[in-house]
Amino acid sequence: MVSASVAERVSRIASEMGYARSSLAYGLRTGRTQTVGVVIPDLTNPLFPPIIRQIERRLAEQGYIAILADSDNNHENEKVIVQSLMSRNVDGLILATAHRLDSVVIACVEENIPLVLVNRTIDAHSVTAVINDDAHGIELAASHLVGLGHEMIAYIGGPQDTSTGHERFLAFKHLKNAGHFKSHSDLIRNCKAFTEIEGRRGFLTLLKKDRKFTAVIAANDLLALGCYDALSELGLRCPNDISVTGFNDMPFVDRLAPPLTSVHIPHEEIGNQAAELLLEKMRNPQSPIRTVNILPELIVRGSTAPPA
Amino acid sequence: MVSASVAERVSRIASEMGYARSSLAYGLRTGRTQTVGVVIPDLTNPLFPPIIRQIERRLAEQGYIAILADSDNNHENEKVIVQSLMSRNVDGLILATAHRLDSVVIACVEENIPLVLVNRTIDAHSVTAVINDDAHGIELAASHLVGLGHEMIAYIGGPQDTSTGHERFLAFKHLKNAGHFKSHSDLIRNCKAFTEIEGRRGFLTLLKKDRKFTAVIAANDLLALGCYDALSELGLRCPNDISVTGFNDMPFVDRLAPPLTSVHIPHEEIGNQAAELLLEKMRNPQSPIRTVNILPELIVRGSTAPPA
Repeated sequence: MVSASVAERVSRIASEMGYARSSLAYGLRTGRTQTVGVVIPDLTNPLFPPIIRQIERRLAEQGYIAILADSDNNHENEKVIVQSLMSRNVDGLILATAHRLDSVVIACVEENIPLVLVNRTIDAHSVTAVINDDAHGIELAASHLVGLGHEMIAYIGGPQDTSTGHERFLAFKHLKNAGHFKSHSDLIRNCKAFTEIEGRRGFLTLLKKDRKFTAVIAANDLLALGCYDALSELGLRCPNDISVTGFNDMPFVDRLAPPLTSVHIPHEEIGNQAAELLLEKMRNPQSPIRTVNILPELIVRGSTAPPA
Repeated sequence: MVSASVAERVSRIASEMGYARSSLAYGLRTGRTQTVGVVIPDLTNPLFPPIIRQIERRLAEQGYIAILADSDNNHENEKVIVQSLMSRNVDGLILATAHRLDSVVIACVEENIPLVLVNRTIDAHSVTAVINDDAHGIELAASHLVGLGHEMIAYIGGPQDTSTGHERFLAFKHLKNAGHFKSHSDLIRNCKAFTEIEGRRGFLTLLKKDRKFTAVIAANDLLALGCYDALSELGLRCPNDISVTGFNDMPFVDRLAPPLTSVHIPHEEIGNQAAELLLEKMRNPQSPIRTVNILPELIVRGSTAPPA
C-alpha cells in the first residue's frame, strides 16, 4: 500500500526515534511470536541440560527463543504449563514429558500446534518424535553382562506409563524369555518414577529377598544411582557383589564411585534433531509425521565385572 | 463502563463459546505479560537446576511463567538474550550471569525493569541481589585444611570479572597474608571460566612446577573436578597426595570418587529468595535495593585428609 522507499523511510525514522518492534503487537498481527515452549519432566536430571542447550542453540540460530518449563514429573503441572504456553501463542512445542496415553499431547495435536516429542513418545506414534532405540539399549546392557558370565539378572524399571519405562521393560522380558539369561518376577521391579529415591526403594526390596542374582539392569542412570545407595546401605559392593548398568550416560556418571556402565545416548544430536524437526514443522505444517529412532551404544566402566 | 452482571454474563458466554484470554492482547493492553526472564551462564552446571526449579515454583504460585535462557558463558549472548526478552515485554528479570562491570545489567536498570541478580552481583551493588558469603566460604575451606595440618595451600580460582571469582580470590589472598597458611604466586591460578576444562588446565600448570603444596582450594566444584582430572593424569591420588575442596556443593559431588569436600550453599533457599525479591519488585518498583548475603557451610567428605 506504500512504496518501498516510503516504507524504508518510515522504518528508518522510527528506529532513529528509538522505537523498537513490539513482539506483542507483532505477535497479534502475524499470529507468530518466535517463541517455542520446551517442557521437561525433571530439570534436576542431568540428562536434560545438554539436550535443551542444543535445542536452544539451534532455535536461536533461526531467531526463536525457548520458554523452558519443568513439570516436576506431574501430569497436572504439564497440563497447566502447556495451557499457559498456548495462551502465550508459542509457535511450537517440544515435550519431553509424554506419557504413552497423553491427553495433553492429544489436545496439542487437535489444536494443530507444531509439536515434537523428545526422549519419550505416545503409543499411537501419531506425533513426530525423537527417541532412542530403547530395546536395543537394554540388549546391549544384557549382552555385556551375559558376556561377563552373569546368569541371573535383576531389573529395576521405570514407570510403565512412559514409552521409555515400558519399552525397556518389554526388551528385558523378551531377552529373558528368549533364554539369554535367567530372571524371575521376584527379581523385577518397575518403579513409579525415574528417580534415585525410587531406585533405592525398589532395589532394597529385591535385595532383601532371596538374593540369587549377580547383576542388575537399571532402566536409567538415576535408578542405577538408587541401586548404588541400596547396595551401600546393605554393606554390599559394586561390582564385587553386584554389577550395575544404567541408561542415558548422563553427565558425571563417569566420575562416580564406581564409574557407571551405561547405555549412551547422543544428547546433543537428540536436541539438534528435535529442534530441526520442529523448525520444519513450523515452516510446513503438512510435513510428514515421523519417529526418529536413535541408536544408542554401551559405555563400559567400573560398575560391571565378572560375577565373584 | 458496564454493570457487574453484564460483565459476568459476557465472560460466561465468551467462555462457553470457547474463547480464552489472549496473553498477547492482554499484554498489549495492560503492559503485563506475567512472564519473567531467567538467564543463567551454563545450564549444564548442576548448580543451577535446583535454584531455577525453586524460582519457577515460586513464580508459578503467583501466575508467572519463567522464560529460561542459557548465555553459554558469553557476554554477547547475554546481551542478545536480554534484548530479546525485553522485546517480549517480560515483567521482570533474574540474571545469574552478572559480571562485576556489566553493561547489560546497567542497561536493564536504566530501562527500569524489575531485576534481581542471583549468585553473582556487580561491584556497585546497585541492584538487588541474592549472593553467597563468598569470603566466609573460602575461610571455612581454608580453616578445615589448616586444621588437618596442611601448611602450604594452592588455589584454583575463577574469572576475576565475576564477583564470585573475585571475592573468593581476595579471601584466599587475605587469609594467606594474615598468616593462616603459606602459599605463593606460583601456587595460585585464576582460570578464565568456571569449568572442568579450565580447572584441569590451570591445575596441571601448578602441579608441573615445583610441587610443595599438599592441598588445593578450588573456587567452585567444576574447577575442583578439573583438579581431580589433572591429579589422575599425573598419577597422583586425592586425598593421599593432594587434598581438594570445592565450592557450591552441587548435586552429585557426594557420589564422586572421592566424594568432594565442598562449601555448601542452600540452592532452594537461594531460588526462593530471588523469586520473592523479584515478586516484591514487580509489585512495588520503589522497594529498596538490597543485597541478601547467604551464609554457606562446609560439608567435609573424602577429598580432604591430613597431609601424608
